Amino acid sequence: MNGKKLNIGLFGFGTVGRGLYDVLKRIGSKNVEIKRVCVRDLTKDRGVDVEFTDKADDIFNDPTINFIVELIDDADAAYDIVKRALKMELPVVSGNKKMLAHHIEELIELQARYNVALLYDASACGSIPVIRNLEEYYDNDLLTSVKGILNGSSNFILSKIFNEKMSYADALKLAQDLGFAESNPTLDIDGWDSLFKLIIITIHAFGLYVPPQDIFTFGISNMNDDDIRFANEKERRFKLVAHVEKIDNKLIMSVMPQLISRNKYIYSVEDEFNGVVIKGLFYDKQFMFGRGAGAYPTGSAVLSDITACLYDYKYEYKKRNDSQLPRYTTDHSFRVYYRYLDYADLDLIKFESVSENYISDDFKYVVGKVSLRELHKVQDELRRRNVFIAAYPND
Amino acid sequence: MNGKKLNIGLFGFGTVGRGLYDVLKRIGSKNVEIKRVCVRDLTKDRGVDVEFTDKADDIFNDPTINFIVELIDDADAAYDIVKRALKMELPVVSGNKKMLAHHIEELIELQARYNVALLYDASACGSIPVIRNLEEYYDNDLLTSVKGILNGSSNFILSKIFNEKMSYADALKLAQDLGFAESNPTLDIDGWDSLFKLIIITIHAFGLYVPPQDIFTFGISNMNDDDIRFANEKERRFKLVAHVEKIDNKLIMSVMPQLISRNKYIYSVEDEFNGVVIKGLFYDKQFMFGRGAGAYPTGSAVLSDITACLYDYKYEYKKRNDSQLPRYTTDHSFRVYYRYLDYADLDLIKFESVSENYISDDFKYVVGKVSLRELHKVQDELRRRNVFIAAYPND
Repeated sequence: MNGKKLNIGLFGFGTVGRGLYDVLKRIGSKNVEIKRVCVRDLTKDRGVDVEFTDKADDIFNDPTINFIVELIDDADAAYDIVKRALKMELPVVSGNKKMLAHHIEELIELQARYNVALLYDASACGSIPVIRNLEEYYDNDLLTSVKGILNGSSNFILSKIFNEKMSYADALKLAQDLGFAESNPTLDIDGWDSLFKLIIITIHAFGLYVPPQDIFTFGISNMNDDDIRFANEKERRFKLVAHVEKIDNKLIMSVMPQLISRNKYIYSVEDEFNGVVIKGLFYDKQFMFGRGAGAYPTGSAVLSDITACLYDYKYEYKKRNDSQLPRYTTDHSFRVYYRYLDYADLDLIKFESVSENYISDDFKYVVGKVSLRELHKVQDELRRRNVFIAAYPND
Repeated sequence: MNGKKLNIGLFGFGTVGRGLYDVLKRIGSKNVEIKRVCVRDLTKDRGVDVEFTDKADDIFNDPTINFIVELIDDADAAYDIVKRALKMELPVVSGNKKMLAHHIEELIELQARYNVALLYDASACGSIPVIRNLEEYYDNDLLTSVKGILNGSSNFILSKIFNEKMSYADALKLAQDLGFAESNPTLDIDGWDSLFKLIIITIHAFGLYVPPQDIFTFGISNMNDDDIRFANEKERRFKLVAHVEKIDNKLIMSVMPQLISRNKYIYSVEDEFNGVVIKGLFYDKQFMFGRGAGAYPTGSAVLSDITACLYDYKYEYKKRNDSQLPRYTTDHSFRVYYRYLDYADLDLIKFESVSENYISDDFKYVVGKVSLRELHKVQDELRRRNVFIAAYPND
């Protein structure tokens, strides 16, 4: 659609949708216009001069609309919208990471079959162009790992705890008051949001799709003051880290807290920012840092996806066709810190070896080696009990 | 040239040219092959199975060669090669920042006239894809500034001084021994290399070309132990910073040492790494970090430029056509630290105001406000005398 004008049918007018509207207005774009917006609640006065509807058909049946942008929370509805758009050969930008993390394989197949663009860079790291850089710039490098802080809300909470000595409860409340965390913050603080982004990144970094339920995921909601004191004593900080690494053509993946030492780049990723470290054979390490959330940064990132389509840009998914595609495994052991309350909690995990064992009346922990497979088996149970686990690398 | 095979005519087989060869060999690319290499000295045994020549004509007259890569030191010769390639409608990748910083306007015009790609992402920050991100991803954002450490050699020296308490002379020697600095290190440590990169970045960030001689440039070669002690006492570090900023549609630019406080991202850019902070209205700040030099990182970055051409990628230079192009000015005042030896050196600079004035037998400095215009007027003189100047922001 080189040189053409984009008339957008937009689904959703929440934080990001409104951000996109404001950014477009501010830069006065002539090639991109929001033609109509589909929302759930038509009665709300939004104070903007755009046509609203509550029927998807009003968008899909409008022959002047030649571009779909989907920025809604409901993953099932988002899936229907994106699929319908692709089948109508309408290019589409999606911001729904949960939907993408579950359906990306089918959607990749559809965008190829209908030869139409599906872009979602804004979904993976807000304003950090990690997907596009993995697609285009790192496509020749032999990548070894991608590791990062992909969720702004949980990182904001951790920053307040470690920099301002706030309690976990106060930090969470502040994040909610400032709009960084949802009223139901499970997606953010239990690691699911990071997990969905990690799955999307992994497709572009290593070509492999791994479904969410196969990847060990553990968040920060069980962290308590003893854990925080432990980290401080070791001069480290907990960060919620999403991690994918290729070792001998096997891929390991996880989302979990990690005890990060001061000399690491992601140690200094503060507040609602995101940071990603990409390692490759030739480049060594690259670090990208920026705002992972917020109306303007994400709205502007969505606009970057939209204007890329003006130049006929599509993801190539080159690594998907690699004959040497890596194999996903949970067969990988590493050192963890595991804090528990009852001795029964200790039996939950089969440690390969234990290097530290501390027991007092109100604080018990072990430091030991455990495999991702063992952790993955009991991840729901871990979340339910009063235990906390974090990767604890030897550096 | 979608889907086509690239047969490369390569000029230069130094660190980066050899790096490109090694990277290509390692990844076993089928679409990209080095067909012939033009070097100055044919007698050197390079131990690789590529055809060498010392005549440019052998490359330009070879009808099977459909792509030119220029990785030589000589800026004049590089200019001739790139111009000749464009006029023959051969896509070309250049790594010569000095040549680009001087001739980019003409070359932009040529690549448009002959509708052929000229790419040089590897020239601006080694492995950090700053140009491509400015071109594509930040094209909608209203950028306000780009600031960074763009030269690995000088940064390596500064790291050794501030982290390992090495003397300036020892650090320089170590950099030379490790191959990070040339035997004549003027380009690196006097800021010229950073300046050339800044000029290239500015074209893509703000659309404006400003010639090298118009921009205040001052390096680290005059720095002495008193300066280092001053920085340490203030808990800051000197970094050689290239900076472009848009204020009220006026553009200011400079390359000079800066006293960086610990809470700034570029404070932690160590050794031969580069780091760039991009600020925009919507994104707030973005930070990109990676290796700015070295055979593999730069060779691989050159390969990224090459393969981009496989997908018909060209820089768009969208901001060049902006009707609101900013105007370059040196009419901008800021706080500096100025260390001098003789009172006559103090008369060299017209301070607008002085907030600190220290005089002892062997160490004299002032902290005061001065304009870029004043500094630019005397920059050659500053370099010749035993004085040192650094930006000293109030943060």
